[in-house]
Amino acid sequence: MAIHQHVLNLVELCARKGIRQAIISPGSRSAPLTLALARHPKMTTRAVADERSAGFIALGMAQQLHQPVILVCTSGSAVYNLAPAVAEAYFQEIPLLILTADRPKDWTHQQDGQTIYQTDIFGKHVKRSFELPADFEHADAHWFAERSTNEAIDLARTEPFGPVHINIPLREPLYPMADERFEYGPVRVIEQLKSSWVLPVETWHQLQDEWETAERKLIAIGQGPHDPALLAVLKKMSEEWCIPIVGDVISNVPRNNEFITRQDVFLSLSDESIKKELKPDLLITCGQSFISKQFKLFLRSQPPEAHWQIQPHNRLADPFQSLTRLIPYEPAAFFEKLFSDIDYQRFVSNDEDDADTGFQGVWQKLDRQATRLVRQFLKDDAVFHEWAVIQRILDSLPVGSQLHVANSMPVRYVNLSGLEGNQRIEVFANRGTSGIDGCLSTAVGAALTTEKPVTVLIGDVAFFYDRNALWNNLIPSNLRIIVLNNHSGNIFRIIDGPSRQPELDSYFETEQPLTAENTAKDAGLSYWKVTSYPELNTALPDFFAEGKSGLLEIETDKVTNAEQFQAYKALIQNAFSPR
Amino acid sequence: MAIHQHVLNLVELCARKGIRQAIISPGSRSAPLTLALARHPKMTTRAVADERSAGFIALGMAQQLHQPVILVCTSGSAVYNLAPAVAEAYFQEIPLLILTADRPKDWTHQQDGQTIYQTDIFGKHVKRSFELPADFEHADAHWFAERSTNEAIDLARTEPFGPVHINIPLREPLYPMADERFEYGPVRVIEQLKSSWVLPVETWHQLQDEWETAERKLIAIGQGPHDPALLAVLKKMSEEWCIPIVGDVISNVPRNNEFITRQDVFLSLSDESIKKELKPDLLITCGQSFISKQFKLFLRSQPPEAHWQIQPHNRLADPFQSLTRLIPYEPAAFFEKLFSDIDYQRFVSNDEDDADTGFQGVWQKLDRQATRLVRQFLKDDAVFHEWAVIQRILDSLPVGSQLHVANSMPVRYVNLSGLEGNQRIEVFANRGTSGIDGCLSTAVGAALTTEKPVTVLIGDVAFFYDRNALWNNLIPSNLRIIVLNNHSGNIFRIIDGPSRQPELDSYFETEQPLTAENTAKDAGLSYWKVTSYPELNTALPDFFAEGKSGLLEIETDKVTNAEQFQAYKALIQNAFSPR
Repeated sequence: MAIHQHVLNLVELCARKGIRQAIISPGSRSAPLTLALARHPKMTTRAVADERSAGFIALGMAQQLHQPVILVCTSGSAVYNLAPAVAEAYFQEIPLLILTADRPKDWTHQQDGQTIYQTDIFGKHVKRSFELPADFEHADAHWFAERSTNEAIDLARTEPFGPVHINIPLREPLYPMADERFEYGPVRVIEQLKSSWVLPVETWHQLQDEWETAERKLIAIGQGPHDPALLAVLKKMSEEWCIPIVGDVISNVPRNNEFITRQDVFLSLSDESIKKELKPDLLITCGQSFISKQFKLFLRSQPPEAHWQIQPHNRLADPFQSLTRLIPYEPAAFFEKLFSDIDYQRFVSNDEDDADTGFQGVWQKLDRQATRLVRQFLKDDAVFHEWAVIQRILDSLPVGSQLHVANSMPVRYVNLSGLEGNQRIEVFANRGTSGIDGCLSTAVGAALTTEKPVTVLIGDVAFFYDRNALWNNLIPSNLRIIVLNNHSGNIFRIIDGPSRQPELDSYFETEQPLTAENTAKDAGLSYWKVTSYPELNTALPDFFAEGKSGLLEIETDKVTNAEQFQAYKALIQNAFSPR
Repeated sequence: MAIHQHVLNLVELCARKGIRQAIISPGSRSAPLTLALARHPKMTTRAVADERSAGFIALGMAQQLHQPVILVCTSGSAVYNLAPAVAEAYFQEIPLLILTADRPKDWTHQQDGQTIYQTDIFGKHVKRSFELPADFEHADAHWFAERSTNEAIDLARTEPFGPVHINIPLREPLYPMADERFEYGPVRVIEQLKSSWVLPVETWHQLQDEWETAERKLIAIGQGPHDPALLAVLKKMSEEWCIPIVGDVISNVPRNNEFITRQDVFLSLSDESIKKELKPDLLITCGQSFISKQFKLFLRSQPPEAHWQIQPHNRLADPFQSLTRLIPYEPAAFFEKLFSDIDYQRFVSNDEDDADTGFQGVWQKLDRQATRLVRQFLKDDAVFHEWAVIQRILDSLPVGSQLHVANSMPVRYVNLSGLEGNQRIEVFANRGTSGIDGCLSTAVGAALTTEKPVTVLIGDVAFFYDRNALWNNLIPSNLRIIVLNNHSGNIFRIIDGPSRQPELDSYFETEQPLTAENTAKDAGLSYWKVTSYPELNTALPDFFAEGKSGLLEIETDKVTNAEQFQAYKALIQNAFSPR
């Protein structure tokens, strides 16, 4: 038996349960974990020095894999550097298995290095925190460690997915002897079977009644990965039952002349009578968070009589303050069953001849109007500004590629712009906590995991905040970074409150003078910089065609960006307000 | 009354209690805090975008001021980015007042942006976490907020000093109207009086008896700031009573032919008979942690019969596994009283004519021998290696300046080298958690606070990890950064365990190719790079003379550094082992 046989067995259990990927930050206390993972024939291990970035890289990988990725760090403050990614994983429901090395508890707070209070350190931001014993003389210790590891892995991938923590106190010696051979296992795999949610027949009848009673029904899809089964049934419901289907850009609901995606544009209208027309009797939602602030405000001010949330677990969130039924069910399966069970004929009668006058028609008409307005507004090339730049980038994205949008302005702009269905772009954003702290690292993790081109759209503050994403030996050739550099936290000039304060420059926008060029050079990335539309038009094809990872920096003026956003708001107010 | 009058009052209370400094990270939820601080006439406020760095900058300031520095951040994962600095402050006992903006609790986990579980988020790494109410309709809410703020501030600066957290849920609107005038207060200051620890007369008698009974007494000083009163009495005890006084470089105990500072060198000796000669009957310690690993191992293997720890609080740490009395008392005052109460004459008899044969003599003789050996070893300029470079830097530091040593190898090398008393250098290091995550930011905070030159000695991994320390508009002209670039986490090649593993390169040292040049340029620092002793000799005077902040990068070879350290160890083994 190895000195730390329980660590070898833990890794073996992970492998037997299908985990294949680990991100490791160097450390000495964690050496038994590092060695056990690096030497396991089924594990792919990668080293990342900055734990904050390591956490988000693992998150970006797990986001793609829908399987837990292992994160290893040493004891002490290293663990706290994982916390931002852990919180994001928790709220975005991404599976992570966090293995933190610790000193034996005997040594906590005894003035020895790299020792902090690691038990339960992530608080409510992990689904559960386990702690292994430091000593394994008693047989029960092995039983406990094995059982806990089994549970931890399956818990991370049980809906709602999320991070699970195992704290691992380790006694010295930490390193094996030169002649020590690692023998993994034997281990006992406790297989956790996958069961599905069903509803009793009488509940279905009740839901069907409520469905049929409600005259105006709206389906809204929150953040989620591209889900062909869900989209297929939603398309049928939109086309055949004339139900308006609303989705944000991070919902991965494509724009296809059916679905509503410009709600954040047209719901800023001030006409209360139109809002009343748009108000649903029954709202059905699935997925995670919504970006569109106007959509949230609209629903909170016009609450539907009934609101069902369909999700494969029972954690309750009520973002529209209108929830009446939490329905634990797989969303695509739920809509399929609803569609097949309800008598189709009843609904055809609701489908008016004039496509613009039914409930769906009102939504679709406004959506089309908003699309035209935004398109027209952004087509104007008299002024070089950020949102128009983003529109041109969105139009140029490789078909079938991935887009990662960073928090703060990029995700808002992209949501206002939307993506065309035929582009087949899958969109990701860290909307669990909506932090700027790991957007670049998340994209690195994704690019390591998918073969598709991965483009990340990121502002200068989020880019420099997380530039250690590029400080490793991992950057894959399919990664494309677009830095929207306005030399500030421009959002504070664009939103209403801070722009009115004399402290705007010093304490909100906080100008930062850097360009990304040196960081790109340091990371060995191809680099382009543009400051005008002609330059952008020239650079974009090269940037996307390049066979290696690149960084395109686009410099805009923060005041111009804010002015243009004001111009857009005036345009919208004018277009959608009562005359 | 302002919308967030309780925030204005909180800031007023801070000012009335003498707090003057705040580090603010931009955010919208935190806007009421930002504005209240920025507009308060007595507050100096500075903006730092990356909360991880902001936390350590505030820590570096508070380390100098011995007063709480305010840290403000917005809600969400921003808070977790402060956590590494909070843990360091807790274990290093540095006062911080952490004000985190939060959403009202109603909104936690409701899929709205930047909302995490902030209540008690720092766990055991703050002295206490308070949480203000979101609503102030009831008069008790004001009473609660005022009382809690009073308590929080004084708790941070009550021994043991440390971080205190106030979580502040804030409802919208977050920004004041254009015409709104801020009126701070009125507030009720609850003054917490400062009382001192005393011991009953009979306890003193008991201690004196124990002191007089013990034949061999050793005083060892852990990490602490430069304390002239303490050093004065220790000097008397060393000179007049022949007590060996041991201190690490971070203890700020100078090398002066009296004090023992090379213990980490000569205690690596393998001769058990000498170790027995060095074993104290009574060990008296004060201060925080010790770096010298050999000293810790020595005391754990040769535990004294009695061990007193003198400290102005009663938090128990037992790093030598030998503690018998925890004495809550101000150390300098304790030693002064002991010195004045005990009959001096008794001890003169212990003072042997031959200075090398008494208990102190044995310690001092070994210390002098170690000093000569190390000096000689490092003087050799045949090979360019990191430790020798560090010795030359230490010899060149401006008299009366500050030295910040980063964790991992720099702090170890500097402790082995030591500093001469006449250099009057005060030494700081983040030895609370011994992380590499904020060493540079801490030095930036110190340089912002002292007028003295501040030199930071940092390895390449710690430098790049924390390079956002330089991503702000604050870098003062008295900051000097020396990056010891061996392109890896060289420590893993130098310590015994990982250097034997085939994974050394990939998962421990993890080579990183960057030089600091681009980072220095981005931060507007003067930059020097040296790769040889002649270059170093030329650069050092310019580097220290320069009227602006600068970065000196010293490139060494990781394999050579490790070989030289092995050579040193062989030399020491040879010198201090029985023939």
